[in-house]
Amino acid sequence: MNFGFVCRSCGQRQSFRPGPSTCSCGGTLLVEYDLERAGRTLTKESLKHRVSSMWRYRELLPVQHEDHIISLGEGWSPLIRMHQAERLLPVGKLWVKREEQNPTGSFKSRGFSAALSIARAHGIKKVAVNSNGNAASALAAYAAYAGMEAYVFVPRDCPGLIVEECVQYGAHTCLVDGFIHDAGKIISDGQQVQGWYNVGTLKEPGRAEGKKTMGLELAEQLNWKLPDVIIYPTGGGSGVIGMWNAFQQLKQLGFINGDLPRMVSVQEAGCQPLVDSMAGSGEFKPQVKHVISSPTGMRVPNPPDGHLILSILQESGGTAVAVTREEIQQAGAAYGRLGISASPEGAATLAGLTRLLDQSWIRPDDEVVLFNTSHAVKYLPWKPASSLPVVKTYQDWLQAVK
Amino acid sequence: MNFGFVCRSCGQRQSFRPGPSTCSCGGTLLVEYDLERAGRTLTKESLKHRVSSMWRYRELLPVQHEDHIISLGEGWSPLIRMHQAERLLPVGKLWVKREEQNPTGSFKSRGFSAALSIARAHGIKKVAVNSNGNAASALAAYAAYAGMEAYVFVPRDCPGLIVEECVQYGAHTCLVDGFIHDAGKIISDGQQVQGWYNVGTLKEPGRAEGKKTMGLELAEQLNWKLPDVIIYPTGGGSGVIGMWNAFQQLKQLGFINGDLPRMVSVQEAGCQPLVDSMAGSGEFKPQVKHVISSPTGMRVPNPPDGHLILSILQESGGTAVAVTREEIQQAGAAYGRLGISASPEGAATLAGLTRLLDQSWIRPDDEVVLFNTSHAVKYLPWKPASSLPVVKTYQDWLQAVK
Ligand SMILES: Cc1ncc(COP(=O)(O)O)c(C=O)c1O
Ligand SMILES: Cc1ncc(COP(=O)(O)O)c(C=O)c1O
Repeated sequence: MNFGFVCRSCGQRQSFRPGPSTCSCGGTLLVEYDLERAGRTLTKESLKHRVSSMWRYRELLPVQHEDHIISLGEGWSPLIRMHQAERLLPVGKLWVKREEQNPTGSFKSRGFSAALSIARAHGIKKVAVNSNGNAASALAAYAAYAGMEAYVFVPRDCPGLIVEECVQYGAHTCLVDGFIHDAGKIISDGQQVQGWYNVGTLKEPGRAEGKKTMGLELAEQLNWKLPDVIIYPTGGGSGVIGMWNAFQQLKQLGFINGDLPRMVSVQEAGCQPLVDSMAGSGEFKPQVKHVISSPTGMRVPNPPDGHLILSILQESGGTAVAVTREEIQQAGAAYGRLGISASPEGAATLAGLTRLLDQSWIRPDDEVVLFNTSHAVKYLPWKPASSLPVVKTYQDWLQAVK
Repeated sequence: MNFGFVCRSCGQRQSFRPGPSTCSCGGTLLVEYDLERAGRTLTKESLKHRVSSMWRYRELLPVQHEDHIISLGEGWSPLIRMHQAERLLPVGKLWVKREEQNPTGSFKSRGFSAALSIARAHGIKKVAVNSNGNAASALAAYAAYAGMEAYVFVPRDCPGLIVEECVQYGAHTCLVDGFIHDAGKIISDGQQVQGWYNVGTLKEPGRAEGKKTMGLELAEQLNWKLPDVIIYPTGGGSGVIGMWNAFQQLKQLGFINGDLPRMVSVQEAGCQPLVDSMAGSGEFKPQVKHVISSPTGMRVPNPPDGHLILSILQESGGTAVAVTREEIQQAGAAYGRLGISASPEGAATLAGLTRLLDQSWIRPDDEVVLFNTSHAVKYLPWKPASSLPVVKTYQDWLQAVK
């Protein structure tokens, strides 16, 4: 095998397996690849001949047999130069990575393509996720395509259109009276008895590995010269963690060198643990203050590995910035006028750019990449047709489905 | 220049220009490429190194300078093998071409990328289209990105979410009390005075050329071995015309040989001029019977070049099939359970496949490609927030915008 686990704390090596990536010492297990071996087949030249999906980086994904790959055409999303915006804003070069063009209309497709391929490789048939929305509909689609049974748990104020998608993809869909971590509690309480394979953020190795491909693609699409700044709408953090991981691996492979981009996390004011931690002691602290932001993928008061996200922002010389709901709305409208349909998360990156330009944190010659992680339409105030259970706990859920 | 016009009727050659492709003899002007010259740079090998958009086939698109290309990342959409469906249906191999993953969520992106690139090359700044919806939102997005002014005219029962998109992309959006040809009449009545460049179906050379790339991609993605059957949801017909054209050019380039696919047009019962013409005299006749089908892209009772569409279906050994609204709904649900979000048009192709399997018109070893031309969500019964003018005629419109 070309890959295995290594513990971030104690350094112990273990063979790869699905499920929680936790070492017996309590540390997080990272997927480690034999990069020397990978580099024999994965070359800049060989990449020119590969599939136009994230699976072009097969040597850097933890799936051994091609037959196990569950692909709906995710990844290798367009990176579009924003010439008009460049004329309006004091920035060197500006690109948008169009993640909304993925199979399920968001970047979440990547993580689930990887996670469910791993699941298939290990004979898993029943999968569950807690999500603010896009992850739920992505799981639903990939599980349907793979012939697996999907259970999704989303906050009750999750955008109705995304809930509708989950239903259309045939997932067992449940609304939760609470936040994404409350939804996660239901899964962890039920997974043993229900036989659910938990594909929640950082609950298994696939999702972060899948998202890593955003970083790999960005490098390749820019001909192995990364931008100065990457602005990413951050919730659970697997996007930032995955991309940072990608850059390390590309360095080790000798594909890139020099400074890495300054990584910027954007959050919506009212749920901004990263921004507050960065401005405070510099140590990560979950948000204890009442959460008052909108139901988007950025609304994660207590990300599973906040320390790691913060340390990446710091190490890269990046920052975290909070933007208001109004700024997000304005940025969404501006995006539309530039020809891009941006979700609130995607729009937040443009709002964040504006902020950081105002603060001169971004310099006039900086090359900047924004991530548009989902589609505007998914967030229209739609009321799902189906009547779905609303629960608070696993016990509630058991009652509801009885 | 590598391209020019040739008249389909009198054979006269003319130099390329934007606008109506009509010869002085009344015949249709086709874009003709110097294929010998094209073949010097466009080779199967060279394609392996090209951009992952439809512009990989630059030699076969009527835009000379790279700088004029207006690209939002359209084309090179995934072609997904439907393993699960193959187990359920008596068909050799089944693929879905995921056109809903284009920048504006439908295959229409292709045509407008080409049409507006031509427009830019000729200094055009004001563009107008009549459309059943997807073409309107595509024009709106591409015009916004290109910094052009867009005017879109759609039937008043056009899916509300698509109308909303047009507004978000900043297009002047107008609802028409009538069908797509009524909307077209408004543009032709107003274009002189308003200075609109008409990008309606077959009103200029770009859209059909852009759609041609669907055929080029299909051939390349299947390693230059075309399927036995292509099922396409047909309205104005530029998809079928464009793809057929692609296959001829690939033959002349020596990229493919042997039989071409049997081309199948699917329409919704109640607006089925192709089906009726095929079943009748074999000569194309527009539908004069009252139109009773749903507001989708297939609802075109009088396509601008019905004769050509019909002759392609016939020449290829194909057919035309009408499916009911209920069959489309069922097929849409079935598609969802297979992990694909299909618009009614896309779902109609699956319904058509089922029909043709029942009739044994498709044989158990046939390899079949379905086109999913747009997203399911775009068709949810959404009421646009903005109040928009509803007009019947150009005079009405003038009043409404005064
Ligand atoms: C559209 C969108 N953007 C951004 C995020 C946050 O991503 P991450 O979990 O990688 O921080 C999410 C997560 O739900 C999302 O759905
Ligand atoms: C989603 C969709 N499918 C199919 C069609 C019909 O395509 P064509 O005009 O190429 O026949 C349309 C046209 O509006 C459409 O929007």
